[in-house]
Amino acid sequence: MAIADGVRGALGSASRIRKMFEEGARLKAQYGPEKVFDFSLGNPDVEPPPDFHRVLVNLALEDAKGSHGYMPNGGYPQVREAIAVKAGAEQGLPLKGSHIVMSVGAAGGLNVIFKAILNPGDEVIVSKPYFMEYRSYISNHGGRIVEVPARPDFNLDISAIQARLSEKTAAVLINSPHNPTGRIYPAETLQALGEALQAQGERQGRWPYLIADEPYRDIAYKPVPPVLPVYPESLAVTSYSKSLSLPGERIGYIAIHPALRDGDDMAKALIYATRILGFVNAPGLMQRIVAELTEVRVDPGIYARRREALKQVLAGAGLEYAEPEGAFYLFCRVPGGDDEAFAAHLQEHLILGVPGQGFGLSGWIRFAYCVDEEYILSSGGAFKKAMQTYKDYHGPSKTHCDKTP
Amino acid sequence: MAIADGVRGALGSASRIRKMFEEGARLKAQYGPEKVFDFSLGNPDVEPPPDFHRVLVNLALEDAKGSHGYMPNGGYPQVREAIAVKAGAEQGLPLKGSHIVMSVGAAGGLNVIFKAILNPGDEVIVSKPYFMEYRSYISNHGGRIVEVPARPDFNLDISAIQARLSEKTAAVLINSPHNPTGRIYPAETLQALGEALQAQGERQGRWPYLIADEPYRDIAYKPVPPVLPVYPESLAVTSYSKSLSLPGERIGYIAIHPALRDGDDMAKALIYATRILGFVNAPGLMQRIVAELTEVRVDPGIYARRREALKQVLAGAGLEYAEPEGAFYLFCRVPGGDDEAFAAHLQEHLILGVPGQGFGLSGWIRFAYCVDEEYILSSGGAFKKAMQTYKDYHGPSKTHCDKTP
Repeated sequence: MAIADGVRGALGSASRIRKMFEEGARLKAQYGPEKVFDFSLGNPDVEPPPDFHRVLVNLALEDAKGSHGYMPNGGYPQVREAIAVKAGAEQGLPLKGSHIVMSVGAAGGLNVIFKAILNPGDEVIVSKPYFMEYRSYISNHGGRIVEVPARPDFNLDISAIQARLSEKTAAVLINSPHNPTGRIYPAETLQALGEALQAQGERQGRWPYLIADEPYRDIAYKPVPPVLPVYPESLAVTSYSKSLSLPGERIGYIAIHPALRDGDDMAKALIYATRILGFVNAPGLMQRIVAELTEVRVDPGIYARRREALKQVLAGAGLEYAEPEGAFYLFCRVPGGDDEAFAAHLQEHLILGVPGQGFGLSGWIRFAYCVDEEYILSSGGAFKKAMQTYKDYHGPSKTHCDKTP
Repeated sequence: MAIADGVRGALGSASRIRKMFEEGARLKAQYGPEKVFDFSLGNPDVEPPPDFHRVLVNLALEDAKGSHGYMPNGGYPQVREAIAVKAGAEQGLPLKGSHIVMSVGAAGGLNVIFKAILNPGDEVIVSKPYFMEYRSYISNHGGRIVEVPARPDFNLDISAIQARLSEKTAAVLINSPHNPTGRIYPAETLQALGEALQAQGERQGRWPYLIADEPYRDIAYKPVPPVLPVYPESLAVTSYSKSLSLPGERIGYIAIHPALRDGDDMAKALIYATRILGFVNAPGLMQRIVAELTEVRVDPGIYARRREALKQVLAGAGLEYAEPEGAFYLFCRVPGGDDEAFAAHLQEHLILGVPGQGFGLSGWIRFAYCVDEEYILSSGGAFKKAMQTYKDYHGPSKTHCDKTP
């Protein structure tokens, strides 16, 4: 009754996806969890690396005085220094502690950035398909999302982005490795984007920020080109949810380009936003842990093997997909193009995936392979049966994928 | 240059307080930290109870599979159940897990509540003086703060609040034990507030929410009456920052009155807001820790002794203050009434406090006594000297306090 209109509306629209999860839970209860092939959730089942456990135990036993108290809102100075070295190495630019703001995961970091930069009516450009939560992160702070379709191979369409740049453009938000397509943006594409934004700034006097959302940087099957070097007005935001398998602990950071205009004010604004949005600071114990684990990541080989397993299963069932270069998602073209109908049909065969509409792009379906390799391989029969009966209704798939295996 | 206008403005106004902290740091560097009496910060120096350390070590050693992964956005179901029992006992109402939403501290919880309930232009009533961050928590989500002066004894002024209720009133936000005054609102005042809000709802068809911000509930020198029983449309929000001295770990919760209208939708809205604001969920490890510590609190006797020490120091210097019933603040009347000038004068005598203007009320100054008892007692000479020289300029204090010791 007295719930905010925007939130009440979202509760209604969210209930469709929620119904799918409830349906999944019902299926697992009815047929047994091992009979249901759940590729719907991006919740890594890989345990944190042993080094995480070692450092957690050490810090717990040590329990230094004052170690759970407040620290500066941007994070412990020594943690920011340690992360600056790591982030600087990844981004190919020397960073200092003052360029790092510790955040409550990447989701917290993105909200902090948008709070810090958006005036009412400002626009943020995203490449479609995209992680749907971006819509809320932007609208929470008075911004408007502008969707620009990706190229057919899911690379950024630089000229299409360029065509949508205006005096209202506060930022371009990119995500590589990409959810849901698994795409890694090539260095030359990023370079072209940086040049487009630089030209826009020179023309308009307003340099849009380039925001790189990079939670999957460490889950990659080829090098992930750094973003910061292509454009000074850039920020990278990431989390340890995937790279250390710590999604429940809510720890990440924002890195500010060292040559960003008014960079000191940007750091202050991000820290202020961290405070007033109620994060106050990133969780203290986890800050101290990740600062000691700058060289540690989960083994991406685990995900590489799973990717191969799922590719094998999908190819065996005659499904076509975008070749995944990173993250733990396979984005498949839907025979006939109706992703809702296809997802519902798969569900009848006890297979769960997320329709492309959940990422703003119909005609595709996302399978998350952050589940056990054996479990993936054992889904092959169900996929084949599902495809056979689906073809009976919809005819053989005539579609082709721009990047088939 | 491209920082949001609202944030840039705040950076400017915040710099005055920041200068004070910088000045404090300068003084400590110049004269030695033990020579500077810093009563400015509400950062508890009391260590978490030994039980916290025990549970942290146990959980770290156990490191159960999946224990750092995602959980439902409202928190682990078993944690919500455990907290429901604790919160129900405190509030004098039986609560279930479904009435609890785990939050990133009380600051995170308040942002989540305001995101869930505020439409643009909605008003939230607060009693002045108040914790200044409330302004941002409300404006972040499109709301407008309405300040209603407290009674002279800093109790809520129910008829003044009643006079400001309108169809725009989304909520009344109260805080007991109170920062900065240390006031605990009596049961009959809360009862009268509940009746006023009930009458308003019946008249207007819109029942304002009653939001109780209770981070200091466990730091109290007399019983803290529960808020939920006085009015069904109520929410309590709290954290473990003070009760377990864990401010850096960002853990707290929201409790929903079991009879709140559309209570299930309210829970969904709070959980949705937790997700889209980028909190995603309260930090997982800390959730599991506080669920095992529902009977544990820091010893309020430590703060009671410090309170006595500071009262003794202030009385010795001839300063008058509101008798503190809870929290760890003494709110003192400023001789002559110019709190900025008085704070600056105290600073010359190496004493740091926060001018009442920082809480919306000139003529007062806040001293935080979450510092060592000996340290407090050793400040007596400095206070006396400061008062002597201040009187030379401003004449003897003629003010009196409504609740003097």
